Amino acid sequence: MNSVVDELVITNKSKIIFLVLDGLGGLPESEGGKTELQVARTPNLDKLARSSVCGLMDPILPGITPGSGPAHFALFGYDPIEANIGRGVLEAAGINLPLTDRDVAIRINFATSDKNGNITDRRAGRLATDINKRICEKIRNKVSLAPEAEFVIETVKEHRAVLVIRGDDLGGHIDDTDPQQTGVLPLEPVAADEGSQKTVRIVKKFLEQAHAAIADEPDGNTMLLRGFAKHKPYKSMMERFKLKTLAVANYPMYRGVAFLLGMDLNPVTPDTKTEFEAVAQKYNDYDFFFVHVKATDARGEDGDFQAKVKVIEEVDNLLPMLTGLKPDVMVVTADHSTPAAMKSHSWHPVPVLLHSNVCRTDDVQTFDEIACIRGGLGRMPSMNLMPIVLANAGRLTKFGA
Amino acid sequence: MNSVVDELVITNKSKIIFLVLDGLGGLPESEGGKTELQVARTPNLDKLARSSVCGLMDPILPGITPGSGPAHFALFGYDPIEANIGRGVLEAAGINLPLTDRDVAIRINFATSDKNGNITDRRAGRLATDINKRICEKIRNKVSLAPEAEFVIETVKEHRAVLVIRGDDLGGHIDDTDPQQTGVLPLEPVAADEGSQKTVRIVKKFLEQAHAAIADEPDGNTMLLRGFAKHKPYKSMMERFKLKTLAVANYPMYRGVAFLLGMDLNPVTPDTKTEFEAVAQKYNDYDFFFVHVKATDARGEDGDFQAKVKVIEEVDNLLPMLTGLKPDVMVVTADHSTPAAMKSHSWHPVPVLLHSNVCRTDDVQTFDEIACIRGGLGRMPSMNLMPIVLANAGRLTKFGA
Repeated sequence: MNSVVDELVITNKSKIIFLVLDGLGGLPESEGGKTELQVARTPNLDKLARSSVCGLMDPILPGITPGSGPAHFALFGYDPIEANIGRGVLEAAGINLPLTDRDVAIRINFATSDKNGNITDRRAGRLATDINKRICEKIRNKVSLAPEAEFVIETVKEHRAVLVIRGDDLGGHIDDTDPQQTGVLPLEPVAADEGSQKTVRIVKKFLEQAHAAIADEPDGNTMLLRGFAKHKPYKSMMERFKLKTLAVANYPMYRGVAFLLGMDLNPVTPDTKTEFEAVAQKYNDYDFFFVHVKATDARGEDGDFQAKVKVIEEVDNLLPMLTGLKPDVMVVTADHSTPAAMKSHSWHPVPVLLHSNVCRTDDVQTFDEIACIRGGLGRMPSMNLMPIVLANAGRLTKFGA
Repeated sequence: MNSVVDELVITNKSKIIFLVLDGLGGLPESEGGKTELQVARTPNLDKLARSSVCGLMDPILPGITPGSGPAHFALFGYDPIEANIGRGVLEAAGINLPLTDRDVAIRINFATSDKNGNITDRRAGRLATDINKRICEKIRNKVSLAPEAEFVIETVKEHRAVLVIRGDDLGGHIDDTDPQQTGVLPLEPVAADEGSQKTVRIVKKFLEQAHAAIADEPDGNTMLLRGFAKHKPYKSMMERFKLKTLAVANYPMYRGVAFLLGMDLNPVTPDTKTEFEAVAQKYNDYDFFFVHVKATDARGEDGDFQAKVKVIEEVDNLLPMLTGLKPDVMVVTADHSTPAAMKSHSWHPVPVLLHSNVCRTDDVQTFDEIACIRGGLGRMPSMNLMPIVLANAGRLTKFGA
């Protein structure tokens, strides 16, 4: 599907604001009740829905609960199954570490072990980030994988870091070395396929030298490797859709996905209001604004129904800051559902509204999960949204004669 | 799609009841009227719909009228086009004949021919089943395909039997030998591809010996071969979904599909009530109960609108026997539509309701073909139902990070 769309892309001066309320989709607190979005007083969203085309979307496939990574890829029109990426790559992207197609990215947890090498703390007491930085610097200075590979190591936060092994013909199918318990040795890295054996050999060389370099650390004298992933570069939003894109997102995961798709990253801002202000400030500089609100998901994960309602109401209250810019296309949707009742992501489809002056308004009167199924978009995969956005922006030409 | 879902499957103690009312979908008797399901008084189904998520499903593809085999495969989450099986395999499965991946299964109609070999009765006067058994026994005793193949022959009923040719490298693309008329010779078996020529040679050897063995039968001295099909074993419901499954179905076709998918088969019971009782009796022993009601389809095929209405009302009346078990997931749907007005299967999408405590109830108030399109499931392929069932049962973990 993607290549058909990509080939039809044309450019113009239209502006698209794409507001993602993370984990917006919900459930009633108890049977017969209303969802968070139904309970929330959302006069601005409801008004917008009445002049929009609405629907429900399955982020990945019906019944599948998505992680945030694939759910966002789908929203941006990338096949979420094909584009699914390993944790290592996502972690590297989250700190905006540029990767190449020769890279295997790996998450590191610094851990502490006793004199026999048995793990005593899998997170090294949630190491101070400064100590993490010092440990990474030691490793940088003492370890060499030359001539067959290079490496990059970068602190993420607390006990977490990212390791990138860069070289030719490196497979990324390697099992985690985290034994998920204390009192035992870390696992040896094991290749899950032939093509990853060279990587394993290099990783072992890395571990041997790195362990020697940090042996004297009281906390963080060893490391557990997780989420090995070969990087497969994506076509950017510019390459595929000719969209100059700004990501206004404050959390590493979403900044990471945006980074992988070649979006520019707005500096981290304190809250939703400052996010919306950034859109206004940079309105002339971009075609497409990906605006990400995290708190809906966070309150859902907390299981705090009322707090999630409140976040939705706050966003609704700020919405005129975006609609007031009069974008050619305004989208409000979610990456996935995070019902407070489940305290987790869920498979339930997400509501979507799309406003433009050619959207063919349906008769949905309120923006919520129940009303939207009667909208003009019906129920569709999230991946189908992006072509509809482009069409409404006048950015797709005709297919066939 | 399937492999993505399969990899996410986890187990728990949840119970799923999956009630299939065969051919439930209908049409009005005349323009402007109501369907069988709309006319039927169904207080229990309607009440259940009000606390369920509803939708309409296309068994195969929009516009395609399905046979019962592929329609059921789709309901169980198997791609109905990929999983489509020849009649021979379905017939063998219907009498629970275990097949291997070296088998070509074939339907036999015993027929009667005159002294020149011309067919005088294509069904041998609908042979008594006992005579069929005697004829099969003769063939078993007199025919040998050694060393290159073995065969199994089993009586089905009246003039029908199943033949299985078992050997290496046997293709199954062979045209029927039934000329569909009397007064002519049976057709020769002809291979439709290169890979089936060996099979044809063996089948000819079989026919020569078998005809000699039964030449003295007054009725059933020849045979017509139909529905040649190479068997391609399916992954079972246990392998794919980790579901211990009981099929409560009284007709050979449905028992056959269940058998092919590795379900346990409840003994045949006299009616719907005894089917529902069986679910209660074995409730602790299984995760998933496939409960099949045939009469809705049969009355549709009869063209008896009122009788179909009555069957629906009877099922509705018995429904509390199932809902009273309080399964974690309760599904009511159909394999396909069989409108009495058409006296046949049809392409019309089928209504579905799914109840669980996390189903996200929509505002559908009655369970029928018209109301359900406004439900939260929208309109989707039947094959998408099973992942949603698993999700509602808490049996799927998250996709991606």
